[in-house]
Amino acid sequence: MTDERRLAWAYLSTVAQGASRSLSALIDEHGVVEVAERIRAGTAKGEVAARLRSRAHLDTAATDLDRLARAGGRLVTPDDDEWPAWQFLSFDRLDTATDTEGAPLALWVWGGRRIDELAERAVGVVGTRAASGYGEHVTSEIVGDLAADGWTIMSGAAFGVDAAAHRAALGVGGTTVAVLACGVDRAYPAAHAQLLRRIAETGLVVSEYPPGTSPARYRFLSRNRLVAALSAGVVVVEAGWRSGARNTAAWARRLGRPVTAVPGPVTSAASQGCHRMIREGEARLVGTAREVVEECGPLLGSDDGRDGLFRRELDGLSEDMTLVYEALPGTDACDPAALAESAGLPIERVRAALPLLELDGFVVATDAGWRRA
Amino acid sequence: MTDERRLAWAYLSTVAQGASRSLSALIDEHGVVEVAERIRAGTAKGEVAARLRSRAHLDTAATDLDRLARAGGRLVTPDDDEWPAWQFLSFDRLDTATDTEGAPLALWVWGGRRIDELAERAVGVVGTRAASGYGEHVTSEIVGDLAADGWTIMSGAAFGVDAAAHRAALGVGGTTVAVLACGVDRAYPAAHAQLLRRIAETGLVVSEYPPGTSPARYRFLSRNRLVAALSAGVVVVEAGWRSGARNTAAWARRLGRPVTAVPGPVTSAASQGCHRMIREGEARLVGTAREVVEECGPLLGSDDGRDGLFRRELDGLSEDMTLVYEALPGTDACDPAALAESAGLPIERVRAALPLLELDGFVVATDAGWRRA
Repeated sequence: MTDERRLAWAYLSTVAQGASRSLSALIDEHGVVEVAERIRAGTAKGEVAARLRSRAHLDTAATDLDRLARAGGRLVTPDDDEWPAWQFLSFDRLDTATDTEGAPLALWVWGGRRIDELAERAVGVVGTRAASGYGEHVTSEIVGDLAADGWTIMSGAAFGVDAAAHRAALGVGGTTVAVLACGVDRAYPAAHAQLLRRIAETGLVVSEYPPGTSPARYRFLSRNRLVAALSAGVVVVEAGWRSGARNTAAWARRLGRPVTAVPGPVTSAASQGCHRMIREGEARLVGTAREVVEECGPLLGSDDGRDGLFRRELDGLSEDMTLVYEALPGTDACDPAALAESAGLPIERVRAALPLLELDGFVVATDAGWRRA
Repeated sequence: MTDERRLAWAYLSTVAQGASRSLSALIDEHGVVEVAERIRAGTAKGEVAARLRSRAHLDTAATDLDRLARAGGRLVTPDDDEWPAWQFLSFDRLDTATDTEGAPLALWVWGGRRIDELAERAVGVVGTRAASGYGEHVTSEIVGDLAADGWTIMSGAAFGVDAAAHRAALGVGGTTVAVLACGVDRAYPAAHAQLLRRIAETGLVVSEYPPGTSPARYRFLSRNRLVAALSAGVVVVEAGWRSGARNTAAWARRLGRPVTAVPGPVTSAASQGCHRMIREGEARLVGTAREVVEECGPLLGSDDGRDGLFRRELDGLSEDMTLVYEALPGTDACDPAALAESAGLPIERVRAALPLLELDGFVVATDAGWRRA
């Protein structure tokens, strides 16, 4: 990509301050450089041009790119290989959407990783700023397992569940991405400056807003849409009755991503939003990373992570049960005699272990014999 | 009903030791006295007769009825007005059922209330024997509200959730029914002798097994079927991964009763069964008595109880919101001006209160104006 094109993207991102379907359509038609020139010169026609006129003079693109590059950041545009085009396809498939409810024009990122790679196998973990001790604990458990299994943890760097999610991912040496509602150069909330720096070191800090942009209410809602779009599915760990996390969940549903929610005590205000979503069928109840992957994994057409998490579940089984389960081939059915031979166990112990494995959902009995569930 | 008929029912109940569809069919065909005589005399033909032969000599009917009467009990049979025939109809509608999965032959009861009246508006409240402090607390809250609202609390008098449910009902002066897996003269568990006595004083202790019968595993499963059949729906408060409460829930589903379950911390073993049922779509998540009634109430074709519980929910609203909500007619839509007049509030305060009521799900905006949700 030429500098000219990148400068044009940066300029349009700054002038548009967020996604614009009509601007993206103009760019598709006339090219990014041409559209940027027309907007800058005030010669662009139509509604979009009229809307952008008041900010058309804001040509900070070169400075912004330069400053961000020095801090270890860059602008990722639809021209770039690492543009997460596949994830953003869902925006084209929305039945109805306002002009701002589209794919971002471009993404300002801080950190050295490729965004397409990090978004390839990512779960959005969101929740209330007012997380309870229980909520933080469960976030750590689920995120720790997901991140250790290679899942990128997407979240919004807010207080509460978001921060617990980022920290738990970092804590197990996993990868996490913070999607901000302000410029990636602005530490928001300020108390998370250090956390954001750590995220940028091994993952990414991402925003569709140019450096210097302050957080604003509508930007948080747009940010939620990006968390959902960049994830294979979303987990809401704790959410009050009217929580921003429900907005992320609603975006996930609109974009066709599975939504899961963690229950908690019905006496806890911090779980009311989760219970409401589960009750209304907006989210599936989950309590473990394995259950999250059962929902989010299939979309990826691969069950690498799933295998890992399932293997961990085996830790709770008796030795005979583990031996018998491990002896079962990946997909084929097997009779107890063959299993006894393969597991090195007397057939009576195999026969005793199989029904217990069945009760726990690890194996099923078929006409052809026993096989993994 | 003649003494002869009641003695025949008591005799057959004692000999059959539980429900038998084929025995019930025989009684329908030949009459209860005739069938009892043939079984007793050993002249009955067919499979049922053969099965009952070993117990045909157990003619303790007169003694049992007499002893039970002195303790304040009686035998309720399909001949009696108070027989809960409507509730037991569901057994006839089962697609497949074994011989013992039918309506009880008769019910031995201890207590002065009519069983049909108590079963008319009843919720089954069940759960693990190993209830946590949280489980007992939530049981008390939900049952207290339901019982204060006139719902009969059906349960099994076991330790844990069952006992908490009975006690909470008694605590608010409500009515509760204990369905036992043994004779109503046997206090089981023994530690609940005093609790069972208190239940019998204002509600009923019920069993399909004759006095003197000891509890047995299969009788607990049959008892669960009666708890479900005598309830408009079931709440599982806490249940382990493999809990007996799931059996009650499964019976409720088979009999067409709504099943609800209370979530809890995902870190609590006592909630795993509830989470499993919610996750698998076997139970709807509930956290309050109101939500239980939303599921179980409609079947009764009356919303008396629901109204009461909804009114209690209003306690949390601001004064303006309450006034506006109360001013809305039962079903018709209303505009803010009419509401202002009826509520005696300035129209601006009505306009401010309506969206808040809408957010809380109390009202909806329609083309014709605002109406109760």
